Amino acid sequence: MTNCKWLKMPSVLKNLIFKEQIMNHLELFESIIAKHSFLCVGLDSEIEKLPPHLLKLKDPVFEFNKRIIDATHQYAVAYKPNIAFYECYGTKGWHSLELTLHYIKKAYPDIFVIADAKRGDIGNTSKMYAKTFFENMPFDAITVAPYMGEDSVAPFISYDEKWVILLALTSNKGADDFQYHSEDGIRLFERVLTVSQKWGTINNLMYVVGATRAEMLKDVRKLVPDHFLLIPGVGAQGGSLGEVARYGLNSKCGLLVNSSRGIIFADNSTNFDKIAAEKAEEIKREMEKYLSERNLI
Amino acid sequence: MTNCKWLKMPSVLKNLIFKEQIMNHLELFESIIAKHSFLCVGLDSEIEKLPPHLLKLKDPVFEFNKRIIDATHQYAVAYKPNIAFYECYGTKGWHSLELTLHYIKKAYPDIFVIADAKRGDIGNTSKMYAKTFFENMPFDAITVAPYMGEDSVAPFISYDEKWVILLALTSNKGADDFQYHSEDGIRLFERVLTVSQKWGTINNLMYVVGATRAEMLKDVRKLVPDHFLLIPGVGAQGGSLGEVARYGLNSKCGLLVNSSRGIIFADNSTNFDKIAAEKAEEIKREMEKYLSERNLI
Repeated sequence: MTNCKWLKMPSVLKNLIFKEQIMNHLELFESIIAKHSFLCVGLDSEIEKLPPHLLKLKDPVFEFNKRIIDATHQYAVAYKPNIAFYECYGTKGWHSLELTLHYIKKAYPDIFVIADAKRGDIGNTSKMYAKTFFENMPFDAITVAPYMGEDSVAPFISYDEKWVILLALTSNKGADDFQYHSEDGIRLFERVLTVSQKWGTINNLMYVVGATRAEMLKDVRKLVPDHFLLIPGVGAQGGSLGEVARYGLNSKCGLLVNSSRGIIFADNSTNFDKIAAEKAEEIKREMEKYLSERNLI
Repeated sequence: MTNCKWLKMPSVLKNLIFKEQIMNHLELFESIIAKHSFLCVGLDSEIEKLPPHLLKLKDPVFEFNKRIIDATHQYAVAYKPNIAFYECYGTKGWHSLELTLHYIKKAYPDIFVIADAKRGDIGNTSKMYAKTFFENMPFDAITVAPYMGEDSVAPFISYDEKWVILLALTSNKGADDFQYHSEDGIRLFERVLTVSQKWGTINNLMYVVGATRAEMLKDVRKLVPDHFLLIPGVGAQGGSLGEVARYGLNSKCGLLVNSSRGIIFADNSTNFDKIAAEKAEEIKREMEKYLSERNLI
């Protein structure tokens, strides 16, 4: 393989030197305590929604992300690029994603970065997806679909100090189609939570639980009291942060709550980053209140 | 959006002019009759497994695919690049995928091309994935995971004359973890087959059914007698083509059987393409026999 020129072609990430900050669940909790926030900012950076003045730049997607990250990093413990919004632009989009990841890891190495990719395939294919997001790109975590079972998830979990975030209960309408399908009173999402606990630990496995059904968090917490949960659906998708905190917080916080459009597309003037920061700070203040009420900070 | 230079950056596929051959299920059947084959060749073109003499070329992955396609196209009705094996190399891999797709569509426009991507997310994200594979790249079909339900699948189906290939019963061991989970005697994969039929038609929806459980095809065919099924797991994964044909063939064939490693990595000498052609022809001959026994050709 040493004489393969193609493999040696330059990549944005190839010459990246940074000390990778490893995060187990305690370190994630420490980061949350330090920032008084369990906010994850979703980088769903769809070009059609970017502030128009950015479009003339060489790489509008990366420039947008960079400014959003610079403006919000003090209020966020995690970023979550949604891979669909990069993949959509082929090689260009992939390049913007690599630059974004490079930027976060270099400028803010204490921030947890999630590839929202919802991958999952037979073993040898999942292995390639894991290589993509954990070796070729230094993501800390990836979202994975559970339908194909243990061997579709194992290649991701097998990486030391990387996380799998398994879909359990999603925030969309279609969640009703299969996730509530029950056998002997055990719904599919509950079976996912129960069965998959054997696949990993609280240090490398968390779950996606949609915020639009915050009351379901009570049932979820009975099955996974100690695991971190990634909660999408707060903000644009209509979930309530107060309800999520009420049912979801545990003794190590145990929550990452994501907001994407409500922060990054709050404004599309030249002040977009300032407004994004205000929105992020607002959410952080609310989170601070809930953390304080539980004596976690 | 007109002044966005970034969006105007050249893409391999941008200047591609070809007459897109639309395939509904009857046209797919006609192509099968013409070739006496229902073979799909999986382009799982992992660089570590390529013939060593290709590695010094500018783009070994594309060169490998091109030669495999030229050698096997007369025995195959479909190609199925496994996206993981391209995505893994970032911008480079994405470029090889674009070139491969360009090549197939230009040289062999009658061949059906499947993006084996197993995507699936909330509506606005699935929409972006659909744009990637159906607008920015001229794939005819994409594999989709069902866990998130109808609105995660609808954006793909909404494209005229494009196909969704929904995971129903997969060929891996982990299929046991959730796909057999049953409610009132209806197993999850059966529920997927039943519920999803309302989402599309036999002209834009097919199902993945693993060949390692060929006898299950009997149960599957009771629920979806007329839909096409994409069958992975023949060859390297151990499924039997005879069993698949026995339980799976319908009056319009209704099967695409995939083989990847058994064909493309049968040999890694400079003769790899000739050997791949021999392997593909062998499978075609067997398929011809089954089609003839059923009086389909």
